[in-house]
Amino acid sequence: MAPAAGMRPSPDALSVVMDALSRRLADRFSVSAAVREQHAHTLTWIQNQPPDCVVFPRDTAEVAEVVRLCVRHGAPIVPFGTGTSLEGHVNAPFGGVCVSTERMSEIVAVHPEDLDAVVQPGVTRRRLNDHLRDQGLFFPIDPGADASLGGMAATRASGTNAVRYGTMRDNVLGLTAVLASGEIIRAGGRAKKSSSGYDLTRLLVGSEGTLGIITELTLRLHGTPEAIAAGVCPFPSVAAACAATTATIQCGIPVARIELLDALQVRACNAYSKLALPEVPTLFLEFHGSDAGVAEQSERFGEIAADFGGGPFEWATRTEERNRLWQARHDAFWAAAAMRPGARPMSTDVCVPISRLADCVAETQADIAASGLVAPIVGHVGDGNFHCLPLIDMADPAEIAACEAFVGRLVERALAMGGACSGEHGVGQAKMKHLEAEHGAGAMAAMRAIKRALDPQNIMNPGKIVIP
Amino acid sequence: MAPAAGMRPSPDALSVVMDALSRRLADRFSVSAAVREQHAHTLTWIQNQPPDCVVFPRDTAEVAEVVRLCVRHGAPIVPFGTGTSLEGHVNAPFGGVCVSTERMSEIVAVHPEDLDAVVQPGVTRRRLNDHLRDQGLFFPIDPGADASLGGMAATRASGTNAVRYGTMRDNVLGLTAVLASGEIIRAGGRAKKSSSGYDLTRLLVGSEGTLGIITELTLRLHGTPEAIAAGVCPFPSVAAACAATTATIQCGIPVARIELLDALQVRACNAYSKLALPEVPTLFLEFHGSDAGVAEQSERFGEIAADFGGGPFEWATRTEERNRLWQARHDAFWAAAAMRPGARPMSTDVCVPISRLADCVAETQADIAASGLVAPIVGHVGDGNFHCLPLIDMADPAEIAACEAFVGRLVERALAMGGACSGEHGVGQAKMKHLEAEHGAGAMAAMRAIKRALDPQNIMNPGKIVIP
Repeated sequence: MAPAAGMRPSPDALSVVMDALSRRLADRFSVSAAVREQHAHTLTWIQNQPPDCVVFPRDTAEVAEVVRLCVRHGAPIVPFGTGTSLEGHVNAPFGGVCVSTERMSEIVAVHPEDLDAVVQPGVTRRRLNDHLRDQGLFFPIDPGADASLGGMAATRASGTNAVRYGTMRDNVLGLTAVLASGEIIRAGGRAKKSSSGYDLTRLLVGSEGTLGIITELTLRLHGTPEAIAAGVCPFPSVAAACAATTATIQCGIPVARIELLDALQVRACNAYSKLALPEVPTLFLEFHGSDAGVAEQSERFGEIAADFGGGPFEWATRTEERNRLWQARHDAFWAAAAMRPGARPMSTDVCVPISRLADCVAETQADIAASGLVAPIVGHVGDGNFHCLPLIDMADPAEIAACEAFVGRLVERALAMGGACSGEHGVGQAKMKHLEAEHGAGAMAAMRAIKRALDPQNIMNPGKIVIP
Repeated sequence: MAPAAGMRPSPDALSVVMDALSRRLADRFSVSAAVREQHAHTLTWIQNQPPDCVVFPRDTAEVAEVVRLCVRHGAPIVPFGTGTSLEGHVNAPFGGVCVSTERMSEIVAVHPEDLDAVVQPGVTRRRLNDHLRDQGLFFPIDPGADASLGGMAATRASGTNAVRYGTMRDNVLGLTAVLASGEIIRAGGRAKKSSSGYDLTRLLVGSEGTLGIITELTLRLHGTPEAIAAGVCPFPSVAAACAATTATIQCGIPVARIELLDALQVRACNAYSKLALPEVPTLFLEFHGSDAGVAEQSERFGEIAADFGGGPFEWATRTEERNRLWQARHDAFWAAAAMRPGARPMSTDVCVPISRLADCVAETQADIAASGLVAPIVGHVGDGNFHCLPLIDMADPAEIAACEAFVGRLVERALAMGGACSGEHGVGQAKMKHLEAEHGAGAMAAMRAIKRALDPQNIMNPGKIVIP
């Protein structure tokens, strides 16, 4: 990684901070090398940069204490959820204190009548959904990993069913956060709408810990659909699959998930999950609604697919059948990783207007072929968002460089098509270099001004998103 | 209004600015008293505070020129759309330059395949929808007035069908703005999702011109529904109507509009529109979907209404029938105003979690009765958002004071129930005094820090939202 502006605390300042934290938090403070490395670990190829210590506060007040101490002595603070982010978000390039939300895992309240829940940030999405199941409610955002809800908010996560339910941007109603001032702020609330003041909720969502630590969340819930249909549909080409996706969205079919696996990814899934799918670009779909509604949606999609040469479209509503149809999609990440044992996945994503999706995927496949990389593609195509998963031999610097260059071209391609350098993985360390190309000098100056205003010492997750 | 911190430019500075603007913009610069008053005019009881001049730039570059000139000489800038805001947003308490977006009314591009449109801020929502109609698309946000889309974004407007389609927060994909630095920023873009950097789009949406002037918008469009059903349903009490609303939302019926008129408002509509509706609390509904879908939704709602003692639920899908059923709702504002000729409406709104809606409306009705005010209630109840329209005699200072006190109690009641001081009208001048009670000292400090960072001279619409 290119070095990012920021500063290590002086050894004296650091030891004052660590002594105070150790006394205050006792066994909820750790300097063990294993714990520190684990808390800088990301699922990616990015080099591990451990913090000087890890703390496990239990509530907002304790987080505020930790932050005030760090502010006083200029020690960097790196918030940590479950460590499933992908772009180096939890690395500590300037050392400092990792604030884990692991012990902040209380489901504070569920309000079924208002379709909202209040949770501490360390609650994971699966645990929340387990808790909600009996009440006929669910929280839809599904980034794949069983991430913490605080981390998902901080990285503006989304995933497979954002096409219907939106992203964390749309599903965080309010939050509590500790800013670099040590002040505790509440933003938003439990009302469904508000036109009351600056949207601090949306400013914190996606700020990746660089403006504050989220210590409580109010989340929008949804009623469990009466019926769910799932289906799978092969296509003659990526272009045909993308065109069918675009037509489905344009027709207003409220598809809950619409996922593309390219031919290489399908081949990987066949090998890994012992399936016999045709090794062609394939869409995986899910529909939510009433019994009649999901049948109508499924049938209409089948007709659209046929118009673009796709099919047969196989779909089902019974749970076991649905699981069978979707197995390849569920196993996609591990199936891809298994294609090249010992290699590391350099998972990356971009997002483009859906009219450009087919072009962007096709050009990217051509680029992969020309680069000699092994890189299956999986896309949340209803949003124009797709992932490439180059599998790289970390012992080969030339391959790492080739892969980084490929990601650079992928981002440039998406930006040239009016897209974003990341649809859902975020910026972290790895995509900082692309932000100015996407947003322009004016917007970057505004982001830096906001960062300086809220974190004048640059101690909140320094070296991520913007260099103030 | 209580005086708000800010500063008039010196007479010398002001005359330099006005001379330069006059030379540069010729007939697109006005100091006429009528034009100035018209551009501070709001639909409300709030005292008119005209700017020193009004300018009519044609594009982003001209707006940037105006802003740079004002910055150099410390002249306040008040952005203006159509003047339909309700809380004194376009008043100029410190004089300065009103920047009208009237001449920025080009529909720059429509991308049907991506369901988005790019518009200048002076385009009104009706004109956009007229333009889109032939393409089978529409822009859903409907605040009642034919407001400009720039103004709607700046005030985070919503209205009747936010319950299904969200608010301006959800439907602005990106924007161009001129900040107080004179810099032009682009935020967001045409991709449906992004996790790339701070959400400047959402920061500008709802900032009411205090952080910058929006000069272009990328809006999310929706496909025109295949079928629309509209209906009307009387209820024995406000509590029963609210309970039926809550149950409808909880059941996941994707209602497109669900509007409450209280008994007083229904009486006003009967008188104004020559109708014979039962003078009881009444819900007006609209459903969007396929033919089968809207029939299913309507029937399910009818069953829910009956469970709560409501009905008969009359509904229809033919346009003329729908218009007949909804006439009372369409005429509600004018019907209310006609109840007390010569009086001014002090239109106000709050928003609460829907579980508290029935209580909040009932307590508010009791408060209205005890205060001796004439104040019908209309609510976007699917969102927990409702309006009171006290009709006041502006010649009677005691009545004005009583009405202001009533609005204060209404806000306190909503906040005590976990709500917001405004669901969709915004802060402007009139609700500034309530922000700290809603958001707390920490969040207010953060808002002020952001305001100072982006507008260090406090010249962007000073005296609105926050005093830096």
